[in-house]
Amino acid sequence: MIQPDSYVRSLLQRSPGETVTARGWVKTRRDSKNVHFVQLNDGSSTTDLQVVLEHGVVPPETVARITTGACISAEGELVASLGKGQSVELKARSLTIHGSADPEHYPLQKKKHTLETLREIGHLRTRSNTFGAVFRVRNTLAAAIHKFFQDRGFLYLHAPVVSASDAEGAGSMFSVTTLDPTLGKKQEFAEDFFGKHTYLTVSGQLEAEIFALAFANVYTFGPTFRAENSNTPRHLAEFYMIEPEMAFCDIKDNQDLAEAFLKFQVGYVLEQCRPDLEFLAKWYDPELIPTLEAVVSSEFERITYTEAVELLGKSGKNFEFPTHWGVDLQSEHERYLTEELLKKPVIVTDYPKDIKAFYMRANDDGKTVAAMDVLLPRIGEIIGGSQREERHDLLLARIRDMAAHGMKEESYWWYLDLRRFGGVEHAGFGMGFERMMMYLTGMKNIRDVIPFPRTPGNAEF
Amino acid sequence: MIQPDSYVRSLLQRSPGETVTARGWVKTRRDSKNVHFVQLNDGSSTTDLQVVLEHGVVPPETVARITTGACISAEGELVASLGKGQSVELKARSLTIHGSADPEHYPLQKKKHTLETLREIGHLRTRSNTFGAVFRVRNTLAAAIHKFFQDRGFLYLHAPVVSASDAEGAGSMFSVTTLDPTLGKKQEFAEDFFGKHTYLTVSGQLEAEIFALAFANVYTFGPTFRAENSNTPRHLAEFYMIEPEMAFCDIKDNQDLAEAFLKFQVGYVLEQCRPDLEFLAKWYDPELIPTLEAVVSSEFERITYTEAVELLGKSGKNFEFPTHWGVDLQSEHERYLTEELLKKPVIVTDYPKDIKAFYMRANDDGKTVAAMDVLLPRIGEIIGGSQREERHDLLLARIRDMAAHGMKEESYWWYLDLRRFGGVEHAGFGMGFERMMMYLTGMKNIRDVIPFPRTPGNAEF
Repeated sequence: MIQPDSYVRSLLQRSPGETVTARGWVKTRRDSKNVHFVQLNDGSSTTDLQVVLEHGVVPPETVARITTGACISAEGELVASLGKGQSVELKARSLTIHGSADPEHYPLQKKKHTLETLREIGHLRTRSNTFGAVFRVRNTLAAAIHKFFQDRGFLYLHAPVVSASDAEGAGSMFSVTTLDPTLGKKQEFAEDFFGKHTYLTVSGQLEAEIFALAFANVYTFGPTFRAENSNTPRHLAEFYMIEPEMAFCDIKDNQDLAEAFLKFQVGYVLEQCRPDLEFLAKWYDPELIPTLEAVVSSEFERITYTEAVELLGKSGKNFEFPTHWGVDLQSEHERYLTEELLKKPVIVTDYPKDIKAFYMRANDDGKTVAAMDVLLPRIGEIIGGSQREERHDLLLARIRDMAAHGMKEESYWWYLDLRRFGGVEHAGFGMGFERMMMYLTGMKNIRDVIPFPRTPGNAEF
Repeated sequence: MIQPDSYVRSLLQRSPGETVTARGWVKTRRDSKNVHFVQLNDGSSTTDLQVVLEHGVVPPETVARITTGACISAEGELVASLGKGQSVELKARSLTIHGSADPEHYPLQKKKHTLETLREIGHLRTRSNTFGAVFRVRNTLAAAIHKFFQDRGFLYLHAPVVSASDAEGAGSMFSVTTLDPTLGKKQEFAEDFFGKHTYLTVSGQLEAEIFALAFANVYTFGPTFRAENSNTPRHLAEFYMIEPEMAFCDIKDNQDLAEAFLKFQVGYVLEQCRPDLEFLAKWYDPELIPTLEAVVSSEFERITYTEAVELLGKSGKNFEFPTHWGVDLQSEHERYLTEELLKKPVIVTDYPKDIKAFYMRANDDGKTVAAMDVLLPRIGEIIGGSQREERHDLLLARIRDMAAHGMKEESYWWYLDLRRFGGVEHAGFGMGFERMMMYLTGMKNIRDVIPFPRTPGNAEF
C-alpha cells in the first residue's frame, strides 16, 4: 500500500539522495540515447514524477512494455532534476511492471482526447490529467464543506434517500419499488416493500428541519434525484446537495452564513488545490483563478427581488424574457445583475410567494416570502434558501391552499408538529455540489465533475 | 443563529460572571419557593444548562408555558453552580418563549419512554437524551472516518446510487424507475428513464476499484440498499457503508488497514464523546466503555478460516449449527472465537471460494480465496473484505462460471478492462456504518442509530 510519504505528490517534495519506491501508472515514455524518461503518476499530483531509467537496468523487452497506462513501480534514488516544475526525479535502480497496457488497445493514448470521448470510457478517464485534477478538487471540496460546518458545531445528518413524501406534486421523481412494471399485471403500492409508494428523495430539507429543532445547527450532504428528462450540460438525474438548517436563525443570518460558506469553499480549494486549478485554467478557462479570487474578496451585494426587477427594467437591455413583478428571474437576468451591473455575487431576497415553495415564511406585505437566491457571476444561482414558516396556522393554511396542486395535508402531520411543539424561527439553504464543482473547475458540462453521471438514457458503470 | 461560543456545551465551559444568551428546548422545569429551575439543552451536550429564574423576572403566565419541549432563550449572567456535573448555571435576567409545547399534547414528557415508543415519533425523539447522545456519536463517527482516510491521503469518491449492474444475481435489490407498476399494462425497461433496468446500489466497490486504479488509495462513504424482507433488529433496507479500496495492496496490508481503521474510530469517539458514552453506558450497557477500550488496546488475532473450523471442532461446544469445512461461520461461532476462546477481535482469512464473491482473488491452493472478515466480541462481523482478483484470465473464467447464477459477462466489460490495462494487485473492504454505531453506542436495535430507519413496511418521515 502506498503510505502517505510515498505518494508521487510526497516524493516530489522530498530531498535528493533519498532512496524511495515510486508506484503508479505511466503517462508517457520518451527514449534518448542512454536513458528512458518515464512520466509516472499515482493520481495524487498534477505534476508527474520523472523516472530516469538508464539502459540496461531492465531488459529491452521490459522497456518495451513501459507504455502509456502501464502500472509500474520503480525503486531508486531521488536526484535533483533539471526539468522545470519539479525539483527531484527518480534514478531507477530497479523497475517492475505490474500490469501492461497494450498500445494497440489501450484507449487513453498520449494525444489529447475530447471530454465527450473520455465520458465513454468512464472507467479509465480517471487516469487522465484533467480528471485527476477534477476529482482531487472534488475530494477537497467535500472536505472543505465538512470542515466549515464541523468547525461551527453543526451536526451532520444523513437524510433518508428513500422517501414517502411526495414533495409538492412529485412530477419528476423516481419510484423505488420491488414491484415489476414489466409483468403486465396490475400491482398495488400497498403490496410494495414499504407498504406504500416510495420515491428517491429530491431534498433532505424537511428532515433537516426535524434535526435543527433538536440540535439547533445541522447540515446534510447527500445524494438527491430528479427524473426530469433534461439532456443539458447542467442537469443530472443523480447529484449531491448540501443543506444546512439552523434554528434561532432568520433570513439575515441565513444570508451571512451562505456568503461565508461560499467564500470558505472557494478559498479552501484555492489554497489546497492550486496546481490543479492552474492546470484547469490553462486548458479550459483562463479566467478561472481571477474569477474565484474575486468571490473570496468581494462583499456580496444584497437586493430584494422587487429591487432586482426595477434594476432590470431600467437596464435598457433587450432581454429575451421581459421582466415584470411576479415572474421568476431567468439566467440572462442573473448574469446581467452579477456580471454587468453589480459585477459581484448578489443575494436576491423576498421573492413573490407564488413562485416559491409552500414552506417559505410569509412576509408582512402579504405578497412576498423570506426566500433568498445567491447568484454568482458566470454561473448564476448557486444557492437557494429561505426562512421557514414557523407559524403553525399560516403553514397549515398554505398547505391547504396547495391541496389543489396535489399536496396532502395528512402527509405533513409531523412537519406541522414541529410548529406545535417548541417551534422557533429557523432557516436554511441548499447548494448543488456539482454546480459548485463546475464553478471551481471551469468545466462546462456537469457530467465531467461527478464520477459516474446519470442522465436520461445513461447509467453506465 | 447560535454561534460556536454560545452552544450549551460551550456555555458550560465558560466562566462565572460572563453575560450570555442561552437558547434551546426545555427538558424540565422545577419550582421552588423563590426560583424556578429550568433544564435547557440545544442538542450540543449530554449535560443540560440549568437556568435559574427568580420569581418576577417574567410574569407567572409565562412561567406556566415553560414546560418540557418549549423553545426558549434566556439572557443573564453565568454564576458558579452548586449542582453536580456542571460548573456554571445561568441566572436569567430575561427569558423569551419562542414556541411552547402544550403538556396535554406534547408526547415527550419527563418520564422515560421506551425506544419503541420513541421510534413512532421520529420527528421528536431527536430531542431526547438518548437520541441526543446517539446522533452526536453518529456525527463524530462520520467525522472520524473522513479524518482517518484524509490524513492518509485517500481520495473520497461518491459511488453512484443508481446502478445498472446486477451484482451477483440481484435477488434483493430495489428497482429505480419512472414506469408505473400499478398501471396494469406491460411496460419495457428499454422505455424507462435510463433506457434499461436500474437498481439502488448494494455496494460501491466495483466503482471504487476504478478509482483505486487511478488514485491508488480511495474510499466511498454512502448509502447502500437491500430489499430483503428481514424484520430483525440488525437489518435496514437503507444503510451506510464505508468502502476503502487500495492499489498496490495485498490481503496483509488490507488487514493492517482494517485493524488501524477500527481502532482509530473507537479511540476517536472515546475521546470526543466521552460524556455521551457514559450516558449510554449508564442507561443501556454497563459494559460499553470497557468493551470499547479493549478494542483500542488489543492486538487483533489473525487466523485462517481453516484454522477457525479446526478450533471450533476442538471446542467441545454444542453449537446449533455444526461446523465443517466449506460452510460459512455463524454468529455463534464468531462469538465463541472472539468472546470465549481468543477474547479479542479476530480477523479470519482465506475462506472457501464457493461461499465468497466472484471478484475475490484465488489462492494457490485452488480451494480458498484471499477474503477476510473482521470479527469483534459481542457483535461479530464488522468488516468484510478481500484482495481482488487482478488476473484477467482467472477473473474472466470465474465470471463465466457464474453465468449459471445469472452473471452476465457483457455487464463486466469495464471491470475486466481494469485487468487488461495497467492492472495491479489491489484490495479493499466494507464496513457497515450502522453496525459500528450499534457497537459504539450499545444500542441493540439498528433502527435506533440512524435518523430515519427504512425497514419492510416502514418509510416514515
